[in-house]
Amino acid sequence: MISSAHRIRLESRSGRHTTNTSGLCPGYGQGNLIVLPNDAAVDFIDLCYRNPVFCPLLGQTPVGNPREINNKEIIHDEDFNITTDIPKYNIYEHGKLLSTKLDITDEWCGNHIAFIIGCSFSFENALSKNGLKPKHTLSGSNVSMFRTNILLNPAGIFKNCHAVVSMRPYKLKDIEKVRNISRKFRKTHGEPIDWGYDAVERLGIQDLNNPEYGDAIKIDDDEIPIFWGCGVTPQVAVQQVGAAISGKVMGHSPGHMLILDIKDNEVINL
Amino acid sequence: MISSAHRIRLESRSGRHTTNTSGLCPGYGQGNLIVLPNDAAVDFIDLCYRNPVFCPLLGQTPVGNPREINNKEIIHDEDFNITTDIPKYNIYEHGKLLSTKLDITDEWCGNHIAFIIGCSFSFENALSKNGLKPKHTLSGSNVSMFRTNILLNPAGIFKNCHAVVSMRPYKLKDIEKVRNISRKFRKTHGEPIDWGYDAVERLGIQDLNNPEYGDAIKIDDDEIPIFWGCGVTPQVAVQQVGAAISGKVMGHSPGHMLILDIKDNEVINL
Repeated sequence: MISSAHRIRLESRSGRHTTNTSGLCPGYGQGNLIVLPNDAAVDFIDLCYRNPVFCPLLGQTPVGNPREINNKEIIHDEDFNITTDIPKYNIYEHGKLLSTKLDITDEWCGNHIAFIIGCSFSFENALSKNGLKPKHTLSGSNVSMFRTNILLNPAGIFKNCHAVVSMRPYKLKDIEKVRNISRKFRKTHGEPIDWGYDAVERLGIQDLNNPEYGDAIKIDDDEIPIFWGCGVTPQVAVQQVGAAISGKVMGHSPGHMLILDIKDNEVINL
Repeated sequence: MISSAHRIRLESRSGRHTTNTSGLCPGYGQGNLIVLPNDAAVDFIDLCYRNPVFCPLLGQTPVGNPREINNKEIIHDEDFNITTDIPKYNIYEHGKLLSTKLDITDEWCGNHIAFIIGCSFSFENALSKNGLKPKHTLSGSNVSMFRTNILLNPAGIFKNCHAVVSMRPYKLKDIEKVRNISRKFRKTHGEPIDWGYDAVERLGIQDLNNPEYGDAIKIDDDEIPIFWGCGVTPQVAVQQVGAAISGKVMGHSPGHMLILDIKDNEVINL
């Protein structure tokens, strides 16, 4: 019998599943994707090392081989292929978004490496089990994501790159509980980086109702916005460094994640 | 025969060496110190994990035992004692600096843990060997250090904590060379986090001629300031969280470092 995680990957592979994965396969971890030409790989690994809250690296493929992830804990499936198993992909060149596609088999070439980065969807099931179900999953929406004015610690070609955050509203009284639950998920962004309306200003977010990625989520009067690191960060980074990367760059479409084989209670130990 | 590193520790232990360690024992790594009550240890370790550029954790003592560092690579000496082997210490309580002392034997108690954090002095010898000797070592001064407006990624009680940077001026043409040399030292702050006069503004530094710690260093017309993460950051953090830590907290006096037994070319592999 195949797992629900494997089934979503198969459905993404065949083009039957094309929507965001928020709330899908509860109990399984989820991952962000960035695919880079090999020339940029060393700098990117350093970027992850220096910014583990925004870019927690979970695993990578060999150069040119989309069918293998070096961290066997996160993907077990033998016919796995990173160019097909995600619902939707973004394709960039010279820092510009060229197109969005359901698979990137034709874009992948011999010098590409895929990196899998932890995703905050991985702790949403833990929040739900503690009576703190994220609001966007209640409404079947994607999480709100915002580009911030936080500059990543630079690494080689990756300089002047801005961090991206995801936002979930909660009641102020729940903030310490929310922090403690997500905190354990160190490799999938961990505890929030900031919270409250003064955080909106600190992070340089222009309009809470107009997220750069994902869906707008209403924040009620007794709630505050809470912000976590987000694995869309590397996609903003490749846009910002532009022509410093020659060749195609690919990423998942924000919110359209790779469903992992690892269970969320195992993600805690990564 | 004892090494020059061991000799400086012995001289610090006996109170004969009390000045800053910049430029001392070239070829050896140096470390920052923070001593915390055990209650704050888990939060502090998370803070280091989430902020490796500012708080690169190299090792720690057992609870209550100042004579042992769990990472044997950094200290070999059998009669080592963290409460005596640093030239000068700062003592804090409830977030306030109480005093500066040459040893903290009387302050240390059964629930204290000492953490050793990488120090940027560890890559200064590598810069010197590449014809880029830091200006403050030429004049025998301490490096300039500044509190910035960068907020650390929070961890438990450590929230709203500001990062500290060290500054070395270099010619603009040398920036990529300086980045590449220090970059290898991932566990002692690595490459700079920012540079240039626009960085002064981004970091919220009020006056380049009035560093919060260390000595002022003249920046010539053909030079720009370059900023690295600094291990004084945890001392600012304990001041900012104030009474959230009950009991005494100790740190090294900025620039007055623990000289390590590890060689700088081995620091690269940490």
